[in-house]
Amino acid sequence: MPYTLFYSPSTASFVIHWLLIHLGVPFETVLVDFEKGAQKGADYLALNPAGRVPTLMVDGKPYSECTALTMLLAERHPDAYLSPAPTAPERANYLMWMVLLANGLLPPFRDWFYADRDSGALDPQALKEFVRPRIEAMFNRLDAQLNDGRPYLIGAKLTAVDFLATMLMRWSRNMPKPATTWTFIAPYVQRMRALDSFLEVNRREGLVDWLNP
Amino acid sequence: MPYTLFYSPSTASFVIHWLLIHLGVPFETVLVDFEKGAQKGADYLALNPAGRVPTLMVDGKPYSECTALTMLLAERHPDAYLSPAPTAPERANYLMWMVLLANGLLPPFRDWFYADRDSGALDPQALKEFVRPRIEAMFNRLDAQLNDGRPYLIGAKLTAVDFLATMLMRWSRNMPKPATTWTFIAPYVQRMRALDSFLEVNRREGLVDWLNP
Repeated sequence: MPYTLFYSPSTASFVIHWLLIHLGVPFETVLVDFEKGAQKGADYLALNPAGRVPTLMVDGKPYSECTALTMLLAERHPDAYLSPAPTAPERANYLMWMVLLANGLLPPFRDWFYADRDSGALDPQALKEFVRPRIEAMFNRLDAQLNDGRPYLIGAKLTAVDFLATMLMRWSRNMPKPATTWTFIAPYVQRMRALDSFLEVNRREGLVDWLNP
Repeated sequence: MPYTLFYSPSTASFVIHWLLIHLGVPFETVLVDFEKGAQKGADYLALNPAGRVPTLMVDGKPYSECTALTMLLAERHPDAYLSPAPTAPERANYLMWMVLLANGLLPPFRDWFYADRDSGALDPQALKEFVRPRIEAMFNRLDAQLNDGRPYLIGAKLTAVDFLATMLMRWSRNMPKPATTWTFIAPYVQRMRALDSFLEVNRREGLVDWLNP
């Protein structure tokens, strides 16, 4: 089995689970039981020093960071055309958006969700209100990127960056201003949620709260 | 001229400036005058909506995010071997470390340096003390990565991730605990600072405060 995914439903492992299904490659899954704190157990920390999901075993070695794994899987399976080739004109935009999601959206989301645990000397609610405008500013920017009517973030073709972006949009579903309230993000989300692989990953993770009507 | 770099000395554009010199490719530079607030002027915001450096013009189009540009330049000039090929066993680690630097170090550094301007309702000093352990935790992790005696982060060979990591280590030079106080980071920094291209980018940016003795 080339890939083993350590995952927990509805977390950052979602995008990797989704991609593995979409690519149609063989993989196994191992549930990391967050309710039992398994992500902070010694066995798991040996694979993933930050104690987070996902961890993906590739050729027997553990790798982490969902953005990196998204890029890696897309590159390792070029027949799916989810990763523009290094020589393609779309490559620069593809890398830029991957990084914007990785450093502009993932960190403030983490603080939003884990403020009670991670706020240190800060008031948790103050930390949440500090990071919320950062999340919304990134949705503004994503909306602006989509406002020329392009179907996908990089242009006419679906790429791996759309999988990561959609997962992050999903994370906002219970926030004061969900991503789907933005004009051009809303139809984009409809389009992404219509993918068979999206339905399948929701089914496998037991998720029912962010599907197309 | 294939590349034009919009930069400001000693900022996030440093790594791109350094790489362009290291790669030996033709490029022009345009100084973005931070003292005059040029990074927030309408002309510049049209190129870079976040109002930050670097912006790199590639084939006449503007791209941003230093991590993405680091990956892009390394891929576009494969003869320098700074970007492991998609099929190389080092690829997964290369992407993982790029993303760890992009989302684990760059955002807390930004808050450390711009706390007075960006802290919103939070006390600036409290924000700085909130992000400092995150920076130090990443230095712990980088030190652990280097503690098997490998010369570079991904192993025996210099890659683009070393350029980005070194710039970020430089940023800690006036912090309570500079990166160079870590056991295995110190000799790594010595090695990176010995590169001719490092000396040259410091010379061109007029920097003298983080050179080998």
